[in-house]
Amino acid sequence: MAAKGNPENLFLVVHGARDLHLENYPIHEPGPNEVLLKMHSVGICGSDVHYWQHGRIGNFVVEKPMVLGHEASGTVAKVGSLVKHLKPGDQVAIEPGAPRETDEFCKVGRYNLSPTIFFCATPPDHGNLCRFYKHNADFCYKLPDNVIFEEGALIEPLSVGIHACRRAGVTLGNKVLVCGAGPIGLVSLLVAKAMGAAQVVVTDLSSSRLSKAKEVGADLVLQVSKETPQEVASKVQGLLGCKPDVTIECTGAEACIQAGIYATASGGTMVLVGLGSEMNTVPLLNAAVREVDIRGVFRYCNTWPVVISMLASKTVNVKPLVTHRFPLEKALEKGVGVKVMIKCDPNDQNP
Amino acid sequence: MAAKGNPENLFLVVHGARDLHLENYPIHEPGPNEVLLKMHSVGICGSDVHYWQHGRIGNFVVEKPMVLGHEASGTVAKVGSLVKHLKPGDQVAIEPGAPRETDEFCKVGRYNLSPTIFFCATPPDHGNLCRFYKHNADFCYKLPDNVIFEEGALIEPLSVGIHACRRAGVTLGNKVLVCGAGPIGLVSLLVAKAMGAAQVVVTDLSSSRLSKAKEVGADLVLQVSKETPQEVASKVQGLLGCKPDVTIECTGAEACIQAGIYATASGGTMVLVGLGSEMNTVPLLNAAVREVDIRGVFRYCNTWPVVISMLASKTVNVKPLVTHRFPLEKALEKGVGVKVMIKCDPNDQNP
Amino acid sequence: MAAKGNPENLFLVVHGARDLHLENYPIHEPGPNEVLLKMHSVGICGSDVHYWQHGRIGNFVVEKPMVLGHEASGTVAKVGSLVKHLKPGDQVAIEPGAPRETDEFCKVGRYNLSPTIFFCATPPDHGNLCRFYKHNADFCYKLPDNVIFEEGALIEPLSVGIHACRRAGVTLGNKVLVCGAGPIGLVSLLVAKAMGAAQVVVTDLSSSRLSKAKEVGADLVLQVSKETPQEVASKVQGLLGCKPDVTIECTGAEACIQAGIYATASGGTMVLVGLGSEMNTVPLLNAAVREVDIRGVFRYCNTWPVVISMLASKTVNVKPLVTHRFPLEKALEKGVGVKVMIKCDPNDQNP
Amino acid sequence: MAAKGNPENLFLVVHGARDLHLENYPIHEPGPNEVLLKMHSVGICGSDVHYWQHGRIGNFVVEKPMVLGHEASGTVAKVGSLVKHLKPGDQVAIEPGAPRETDEFCKVGRYNLSPTIFFCATPPDHGNLCRFYKHNADFCYKLPDNVIFEEGALIEPLSVGIHACRRAGVTLGNKVLVCGAGPIGLVSLLVAKAMGAAQVVVTDLSSSRLSKAKEVGADLVLQVSKETPQEVASKVQGLLGCKPDVTIECTGAEACIQAGIYATASGGTMVLVGLGSEMNTVPLLNAAVREVDIRGVFRYCNTWPVVISMLASKTVNVKPLVTHRFPLEKALEKGVGVKVMIKCDPNDQNP
Repeated sequence: MAAKGNPENLFLVVHGARDLHLENYPIHEPGPNEVLLKMHSVGICGSDVHYWQHGRIGNFVVEKPMVLGHEASGTVAKVGSLVKHLKPGDQVAIEPGAPRETDEFCKVGRYNLSPTIFFCATPPDHGNLCRFYKHNADFCYKLPDNVIFEEGALIEPLSVGIHACRRAGVTLGNKVLVCGAGPIGLVSLLVAKAMGAAQVVVTDLSSSRLSKAKEVGADLVLQVSKETPQEVASKVQGLLGCKPDVTIECTGAEACIQAGIYATASGGTMVLVGLGSEMNTVPLLNAAVREVDIRGVFRYCNTWPVVISMLASKTVNVKPLVTHRFPLEKALEKGVGVKVMIKCDPNDQNP
Repeated sequence: MAAKGNPENLFLVVHGARDLHLENYPIHEPGPNEVLLKMHSVGICGSDVHYWQHGRIGNFVVEKPMVLGHEASGTVAKVGSLVKHLKPGDQVAIEPGAPRETDEFCKVGRYNLSPTIFFCATPPDHGNLCRFYKHNADFCYKLPDNVIFEEGALIEPLSVGIHACRRAGVTLGNKVLVCGAGPIGLVSLLVAKAMGAAQVVVTDLSSSRLSKAKEVGADLVLQVSKETPQEVASKVQGLLGCKPDVTIECTGAEACIQAGIYATASGGTMVLVGLGSEMNTVPLLNAAVREVDIRGVFRYCNTWPVVISMLASKTVNVKPLVTHRFPLEKALEKGVGVKVMIKCDPNDQNP
Repeated sequence: MAAKGNPENLFLVVHGARDLHLENYPIHEPGPNEVLLKMHSVGICGSDVHYWQHGRIGNFVVEKPMVLGHEASGTVAKVGSLVKHLKPGDQVAIEPGAPRETDEFCKVGRYNLSPTIFFCATPPDHGNLCRFYKHNADFCYKLPDNVIFEEGALIEPLSVGIHACRRAGVTLGNKVLVCGAGPIGLVSLLVAKAMGAAQVVVTDLSSSRLSKAKEVGADLVLQVSKETPQEVASKVQGLLGCKPDVTIECTGAEACIQAGIYATASGGTMVLVGLGSEMNTVPLLNAAVREVDIRGVFRYCNTWPVVISMLASKTVNVKPLVTHRFPLEKALEKGVGVKVMIKCDPNDQNP
Repeated sequence: MAAKGNPENLFLVVHGARDLHLENYPIHEPGPNEVLLKMHSVGICGSDVHYWQHGRIGNFVVEKPMVLGHEASGTVAKVGSLVKHLKPGDQVAIEPGAPRETDEFCKVGRYNLSPTIFFCATPPDHGNLCRFYKHNADFCYKLPDNVIFEEGALIEPLSVGIHACRRAGVTLGNKVLVCGAGPIGLVSLLVAKAMGAAQVVVTDLSSSRLSKAKEVGADLVLQVSKETPQEVASKVQGLLGCKPDVTIECTGAEACIQAGIYATASGGTMVLVGLGSEMNTVPLLNAAVREVDIRGVFRYCNTWPVVISMLASKTVNVKPLVTHRFPLEKALEKGVGVKVMIKCDPNDQNP
């Protein structure tokens, strides 16, 4: 346990709703299959903010102090006795979910569904918004020389986009609807284009968000306000000249889910990335008789190596996503842009 | 071209709600790609009864007189000039949906989604509850010698079960939940077992329907009454020892759809076969975060050759499904069992 | 029906090995489901040259005069009585394979495997290197305003690349090996990149072909000469830093097929696009124990709408592929570049 | 290391070609994630016999003494400190391959391809033909009460059949060709039928093996002798009335691989289960232009829970496969039937 007062290892800890502290914890030795990391860049995710503001997300409740942060990269400081693929000095990106056991979900390659998985900054598991952090070495991935720390930290949100697009079956020539131009909508857009989508239309209430979507690569945008779901679907069809093959719903709003079903082409797929209320009233009959699949997206699996390849080969450009940077000591500052990046290394605050 | 009033060609025609007639129509010559069939056995489907009782199903309205019947088999009487794979005397099963054009749905092998498809006994297209009927020859399939006419007619409901199980991804060793023990539930059960499902549990309100399900091959049955959806899900899990990999929802009832979502294992699939009301309130969040896919099932495609192979090799036994038989003249008689079979050939009323 | 000898309808006809003529044929009226096209641009394919030089390709023998050409676009001149989606004046791209019957391959969406398919310029079916040509309207696709005729003609070779990449399962972040930098290698490269491949390495004997590959988008190239297949595989691995997930073999040469097997990562796929000799000696054991799939590629299916979307949205740039242009009267000129385009309209020789 | 002389823990150890010993080794304590098992039944596989006779299989060479045996079941004697899902007294089946690290193959669910996997009785890893054996607890599966030890041991060969049929994509209504009626051919047959294959034809040189195939469920058998591969393919087509959708090649013989390619339907799949020589001369062109996929099969993954479900629900009957039983002390006896089962528990020699 932690002897407070070690000035070397600051952590950003949430104790409950609107109860956030910067605290010192000791630096732990890595276990045989772990690495100790000197953290460099950690992105702030909507879930971090939500835990801070509300002390919970759905059934996940902050019952004891929890370190925030799960979009992270850093440098290997020490390796455990059994670790072969990493060595001190390696710069790595951290996959925040690391299975605790080899259960049936892990064996079939869907480890994100493992009910006992460790996941950074989901209660009760600590995150990595700190100076030093240790993690399962198999879920730390060496960054090539031409990929910088902030790109490494952005692999996490990009992974959400990849998992969404994979589950949606996005493929060459697709017309895609992305509902919501927040960070997840933007990465879904980026990934859909990288997978060969011919046209992506992004919807949002906010014109400034839609401007960002255009900047990031949206072919078409649609600002929605008071339209019915059917009207939104109709406008999307008008813009594309046909119904989209795939809809990526990133808002969680019931009206958007409804619009997504009406909008999607027969035989197509809508994925639910945004999470909203427990129950939703939706036109299931319309989806069913047109064989529009409705598929959920829970985090991601098997994405880090893919994103690293994409970043190394410059297949995607994620740099426009970072709009603010703060040192760890000022992590409580509130950014209003797309993505706030916290710089954990007091001696290196570069991207 | 046959003269009107030919007493040889009786048709069962619905004119509107509760307005059903036996009428004589002329026998038409088959077009170049068509065959003229002497009908033998035609099963009565819930949709036939629904058109008779209500004059409509959802947006499909009987606006002019429509011949009923779409589960059918018969004997080739004449072939069109371009037909090569059939000859007079061949006994065939009839796939009731035959695309009118080679659109993009047809080209990718999902012709059931073609919006302009001809489909027997869906307004305004006539069915085949009659003495003589002509159909697209490519959608008539020769029956092997060891497959009888009634089995040929039952290919249609079995096809619904196959399409449901395919869309659900039923595979070897699966645990499967089938909601509803009506004809569609029973064929889904039959097909799931034939695909290698290890255990199928069937739920229904009626104990007599569940007895039939046991007879047809259900490993487990669950009679439901006033349980909440979560309670049903819990009981299903108790019976199987785990959550089912696949749920095949055949009732269309909102409570059953809800139960199906709660019941299905993380990473599994629920298919919607039963059609209910336009809007449904369902626990989408529960489905989404556990990556339970919700997939619709609209009729079927590419099933006739498969079922014929299964019937020829005795992989499935569909004979217990037929509980009543009537000659065409008495097609208005009401059966109360699983499947009523109408015998259209006055000279051959055998199965 | 047009009188024979109409000087308006020139055709490029092969009568046998090295026996090529420009001849006049009558202009035929389109059938009910056909359109008559005024041809604009027709690319020359290796198979056209092969039929001209050898009078055959494998079992396909030119036994009676056959018009060449199958990479084509033109303008609708007349439509058949049942055609709804096209009208005179529409600019269209032509899919050269059009099924003659709705067989089981067509029904499941793999119509390219239909043994009775009509296919332009494969004996005994005529191609479209001519002034006027009629074709199944369902296999003519309207070009958007921003897609020009030569792009329309290039959909055919791009379709080979798409079908190859689909069969190979190319997906986001993949490392891909393309063997051979001829036209098919180049389109496979283009498509693999469009599908999100992170790195594509192209091999060839010729440095000038490899320069073209670099120009078209290859991340890496490897000029091979006398290496053993294992050595080629090793060099590819050296360039990529790992074995490629996918190999697209476009040469048909046995040594390349062998190299492709050794090179491909365990669990990966090699597709055979290049066609070589009937029998090949290959390290099947190596492929089998590493679960490297070997998959053939026969023409393509369901690609035209995809490529049109890609061209309209500028997802791919095919213009660098056209290196020569000749009017129809000079179609016998020999080009030495990537793709020769024949201009069939004497009044419009533009791209 | 082993202090010889402990009479409690006999092992069957191969030291090299034709150099087999029964030796005593100490009983080791299980590690934190391991269980110690009291072995009950261990099947003898062709590979065990091959290591005994030749001291090697391809590149796998017995360089130091190796315990044989990898088709096994037993009773949990002790559990490691972290094991939760098993307790002493549980009867379990053992999956012989247990990954040593969570590499990319494991993460995507294809752990059989992990190059560093531990695998019983593949040099240098010891097998479990002994009295007491310890194994990774995550790869030991509790047997339900109605599944006996020998069925548990037979899960291993059945798993080969499942992996073969999965890789082949066997599905409802398929026509399947199985080449070779040895143990692997028989389990492939059993699994193909359980997955819904309509007809399976088995070929072999030996009429007695084919009789066993009939007993196990083959719909059709074909005794081959001097036919060319094309002739074999033609006879198979004659028997089935069409080409098989799937071919499962279990012999490794070049002539059979050739016959398999010619025999398989266009668009179908041949899997290579039997392993033969390094290089094979095969009609790749024929496979390629008909899009017949050739896929390897290396061991298996994700099969134990499936087979346990099948055994518990009596979906398959594997008991006819066991033809001989010997106590561990007589494991060197040679059986001539399908499957020899070694009984490792001196106090319980029951099935």
